[in-house]
Amino acid sequence: MGDEATWPVVGMVGGGQLARMTQPAAVALGVRLKVLAASPTESAAQVVNDPVIADEKALADLRAFAAGCDVLTFDHEHVPPAWLEALESDGVLVRPGSSALLHAQDKGVMRARLTALGIPCPRWAVVPEPSDVASFAASAGGDVVLKTTRGGYDGKGVWLVSDDTPAEVIAEPFRAGVPVLAEERVDYARELSAVVARSPHGQAVAYPVVESVQRDGICVEVVAPAPGLAGDLAVEAQRLALTVAAALDVVGVLAVELFETTDGRLLVNELAMRPHNSGHWSIDGAVTSQFENHLRAVLDLPLGSPAARAPYTVMVNLLGGDLPEVYSTYRHIMARDPELKVHWYGKGVRPGRKVGHVTAYGADVEDLRSRAWHAADYIRGDIDE
Amino acid sequence: MGDEATWPVVGMVGGGQLARMTQPAAVALGVRLKVLAASPTESAAQVVNDPVIADEKALADLRAFAAGCDVLTFDHEHVPPAWLEALESDGVLVRPGSSALLHAQDKGVMRARLTALGIPCPRWAVVPEPSDVASFAASAGGDVVLKTTRGGYDGKGVWLVSDDTPAEVIAEPFRAGVPVLAEERVDYARELSAVVARSPHGQAVAYPVVESVQRDGICVEVVAPAPGLAGDLAVEAQRLALTVAAALDVVGVLAVELFETTDGRLLVNELAMRPHNSGHWSIDGAVTSQFENHLRAVLDLPLGSPAARAPYTVMVNLLGGDLPEVYSTYRHIMARDPELKVHWYGKGVRPGRKVGHVTAYGADVEDLRSRAWHAADYIRGDIDE
Repeated sequence: MGDEATWPVVGMVGGGQLARMTQPAAVALGVRLKVLAASPTESAAQVVNDPVIADEKALADLRAFAAGCDVLTFDHEHVPPAWLEALESDGVLVRPGSSALLHAQDKGVMRARLTALGIPCPRWAVVPEPSDVASFAASAGGDVVLKTTRGGYDGKGVWLVSDDTPAEVIAEPFRAGVPVLAEERVDYARELSAVVARSPHGQAVAYPVVESVQRDGICVEVVAPAPGLAGDLAVEAQRLALTVAAALDVVGVLAVELFETTDGRLLVNELAMRPHNSGHWSIDGAVTSQFENHLRAVLDLPLGSPAARAPYTVMVNLLGGDLPEVYSTYRHIMARDPELKVHWYGKGVRPGRKVGHVTAYGADVEDLRSRAWHAADYIRGDIDE
Repeated sequence: MGDEATWPVVGMVGGGQLARMTQPAAVALGVRLKVLAASPTESAAQVVNDPVIADEKALADLRAFAAGCDVLTFDHEHVPPAWLEALESDGVLVRPGSSALLHAQDKGVMRARLTALGIPCPRWAVVPEPSDVASFAASAGGDVVLKTTRGGYDGKGVWLVSDDTPAEVIAEPFRAGVPVLAEERVDYARELSAVVARSPHGQAVAYPVVESVQRDGICVEVVAPAPGLAGDLAVEAQRLALTVAAALDVVGVLAVELFETTDGRLLVNELAMRPHNSGHWSIDGAVTSQFENHLRAVLDLPLGSPAARAPYTVMVNLLGGDLPEVYSTYRHIMARDPELKVHWYGKGVRPGRKVGHVTAYGADVEDLRSRAWHAADYIRGDIDE
């Protein structure tokens, strides 16, 4: 069968929707995507050949999985850093590497490194005890956000603290047994995200900077590019993301979530080193999707153009609602809007759970938002026509 | 896990590149794609969960496969018509149905039906014996093309006969033991293709009419839309395809390959009832790919917009050459052209075999052709820079 043997195998640890959405890019490139999933019903496990059902927290399972792959990458940040280092010691190509990935796994490490690099961040401190929060709040001059340095996502692991917050609430984040990060509560106009991809030999591409709309700590809408963003801020956001990617030696996709403050500054909020929700628009809206560029990057192939294909692309997440059955809603939303792109993650519906997204692209951003939100609201069961 | 059980399973018989390219569309829609393949190394078998390795010519295998699917469809036309009828008698949803598919399986049946419908075709006759060819040639007034009515593809099963063709060559097509179709050799300016999709309740969409360039009977290049095609001919080509789809009760994608004659007429050359090489451009170039619309159609979901996303999209097939190893050529072609879209089918390379395709889109059709051909020639090993 010719040169099949020379085609690389990319192993992705994690069976969620990010691994699932990597599969279409792998199918096109001819790259074999292997997935380590916790169960055969997980989102990505449904759509790849021979998924490996194993424990991503067990080094032996990771080693067995890596043995069948040319390069290892990730759908999430949950693999213990010590296991990543052990795999690297074994000679496994881990991309991004453990020393880069640590900055997406530990918010304290991330803040310290970004500050050392001169990257603008909210005022921050790692606070050893609940009693240290008050003095940080005094120095920050306002409300404070407490975050567990490890293990949080989608608004979990985050507490807002103001003058009148009871002591027992302030004590909560400390109960997880990991260090707690205190940050000033930033007075922001909106949230932005700068997604870049970087390859081992240092090539990098920057996607258009997007606006990300959050609700209850969960991303619900992304508009690419961020409407009305000043040109110098857009360039600055891309420059920040490229600087972080290079300084941390990131390989693959890096998403830098940013606050645009009410006084026109950019502050880094979070980092993710994998395809990111704020980049899902790129599947339908960019020349090369973030998933394809992640694969190209971890394989050290030249990166594809991140250029937008339309003046605006709007992505709205589909969150589960109370509808007992969702597939039948397809008829309505597809008939209503033949240009809408629907992405379903193959996950069971639970209220508030991200189960898919829709994308619309074109010139009129308000029309795109209205069309995408209509589909999301209909699928959620919030509207019935 | 919520409503997973209500999500449909589409079974595709055949493990080739058409089934492979259907998988990304299935991943996005959340539809489970099951594939019946002849071997686990086939193109599509590599990229779907739990491919069924079985004999597509064996009714028992087809029945077992269909039992796990909500609807059955096809990557090719090779399933025996009697087995399709048997499956329909079992109550299996076969889409397209056996009575439609027969017109893509038997060129004699196709010609008779199209002629009865008033669809313009080359002059034709089913010729019982080699000795009948001369009288058909006399009535057609020129060279003749002989085709086996069943089993031909990509230039196989086709013979050109002129005045001085030896009798032993004329006898060749008759040796296959299936009826032989004689057609006038059409004096055509170029070949066109009109791809449409149609759903069971009769909704249909027509893709832009494309120009298809053949070499040695194999499609090598497609330009969408066909450059310089007169507006009335484009509409006529779409109308012909929609008429055929409705009259034959086609469900799914129908490709109608056409001759544009030197005197400005359209004649139907071939029919295919599945995603077709002349529609591959739609993956990168249309709002909804032919693969997604095939899935939507066989599931009786509303069809997506077939509109083009760019003024022109050029697709060039990657044919195997003499290079012993192809993956390393990716570095060069991706670095040279970050906007090129590469599709690799996971097939072993053999000289002349279709192993992938590339797509370029934009406004300048000659630039797009030059970029796409450069990649194809480089991968084939015909050029080295």
